Amino acid sequence: MTALDAYLHGRRERIDAALADYFPLDPPHPHRLIEAVRYTLLGGGKRIRPILLLAACEAVGGDVARALPYACAIEMIHSYSLIHDDLPAMDDDALRRGRPTSHMVFGEGLAILAGDALLTEAFHLLARSAEQNPEPQRALRAMREIADAAGAHGMVGGQAADIAAQGVEPDLALVEFIHVRKTGALLLAAVRAGALIGGADDAALKSLTRYGECLGLAFQIADDILDAEAPPSLTGKTGGRDGLLHKATFPAALGLPAAKQRARELREQALDAVSACDARAEPLRDLVRFVVGRACES
Amino acid sequence: MTALDAYLHGRRERIDAALADYFPLDPPHPHRLIEAVRYTLLGGGKRIRPILLLAACEAVGGDVARALPYACAIEMIHSYSLIHDDLPAMDDDALRRGRPTSHMVFGEGLAILAGDALLTEAFHLLARSAEQNPEPQRALRAMREIADAAGAHGMVGGQAADIAAQGVEPDLALVEFIHVRKTGALLLAAVRAGALIGGADDAALKSLTRYGECLGLAFQIADDILDAEAPPSLTGKTGGRDGLLHKATFPAALGLPAAKQRARELREQALDAVSACDARAEPLRDLVRFVVGRACES
Repeated sequence: MTALDAYLHGRRERIDAALADYFPLDPPHPHRLIEAVRYTLLGGGKRIRPILLLAACEAVGGDVARALPYACAIEMIHSYSLIHDDLPAMDDDALRRGRPTSHMVFGEGLAILAGDALLTEAFHLLARSAEQNPEPQRALRAMREIADAAGAHGMVGGQAADIAAQGVEPDLALVEFIHVRKTGALLLAAVRAGALIGGADDAALKSLTRYGECLGLAFQIADDILDAEAPPSLTGKTGGRDGLLHKATFPAALGLPAAKQRARELREQALDAVSACDARAEPLRDLVRFVVGRACES
Repeated sequence: MTALDAYLHGRRERIDAALADYFPLDPPHPHRLIEAVRYTLLGGGKRIRPILLLAACEAVGGDVARALPYACAIEMIHSYSLIHDDLPAMDDDALRRGRPTSHMVFGEGLAILAGDALLTEAFHLLARSAEQNPEPQRALRAMREIADAAGAHGMVGGQAADIAAQGVEPDLALVEFIHVRKTGALLLAAVRAGALIGGADDAALKSLTRYGECLGLAFQIADDILDAEAPPSLTGKTGGRDGLLHKATFPAALGLPAAKQRARELREQALDAVSACDARAEPLRDLVRFVVGRACES
């Protein structure tokens, strides 16, 4: 196990344990809704967003324990978006992380409600956490930025634009418009929220913001490349669905070699953005290398 | 126009204007998602929840202007729940407030996203508002209570239980379990949030909580009675659907006369709870009379 693997593994275990605590299966009230929430929330996943949030907090010398609820809330929001995106009325995916998607197991109605519950509980957790934060203004700013990134101007708006673009000939401007909102906004919010909770000053927040913007776009390009290239056994999803749905992707707009080149450039820009940071930013550097390396080894 | 009519009309106008401002149709980016959000959010509605929130703030001598963002957030959450509840995978309703439901007009995918956007923007607004509140701890507590009432232990949990109960012979305990969560929790949260933002002390908060509990249940019983009795032209919904779906309702569990009797008792209990309050609580008193009177004139 490399040092990065060990780091990621340790972080994942901490996040998974905290997430499980937020949705206990209360024996006197066995509840199918909570089962559905746990099925997706605790069903694996790379935990990139919460790990990023903790790494950004670490990079500015903050207390990781204080950032943990924010990391969990970001993962709950991501998890809700997966459940809703997989629905028949959206991307109609039957497989996710190598398992049947939520609506295949629990039915569409309960899947929609499980997503709704996750989104709501994320904000419940953020409010609770802010109440206990000695700097409520920082906590509230982090919460507001997460909500903005998840909403109509961010993730939900990106998904709506993605649905509208199905079957349209993809051009680069449209692909970037969609992905900056659909994936990039929440990744950037994870980085900024971690930095804010960690006590970042304006200069550090600016550097980490630039890092988060580059990483966000690199992440989606890498994901598109993996979808286009990898067999389902590797991605855990129904392979090549983006192509089947004529989805707006970077490989479709640029071709595969140029998409890989773009991902590598964004990795270098992300590394540049945090080049003035000390060794505590090493996990952030490792994370962008990991994200891009999965799709373009070099 | 009675004094109550004038009061409700004035409140509705103020709330409607504020809601429209939160979702502008930005001309350079015409956006079908925002159209879908506005279609339901601004498509009429009695605005009971936000009016209650403002009335609770007023009753404890608070500043109604400061409570307005909370009132709007509560209505956004209510509006999202209507869109999702009407979906084919849930109650499968084609008509709401005399108009086709969101998914009939915009398709299921966009309707799900419009609901997601409304829920997220509600918390964005609450976070922004708390940042500007000189008492962030009160603002955060109100936000946490709203999230709790809307989530797995409240509204979403109630809807899940309601779906699970379809076709089951309704008994009173089950009907109350569902309705306390599905409808009562958010109505109670509206009352408590208004009181908290208005600066209520512990004694006032306790009285208004009792009022909110009684009103919440009375509201749902009245709604069930209207659904069972009124023609669609009056309710604006597909009439008698609760019966068709074998839904757990109070008239089904108790019979109509006993359901009406229960609603009247709850009205009296709500009035008792705020009997020690001064004239500023008059709108709260009028509201519970209005809610029960619609279904059982007496």
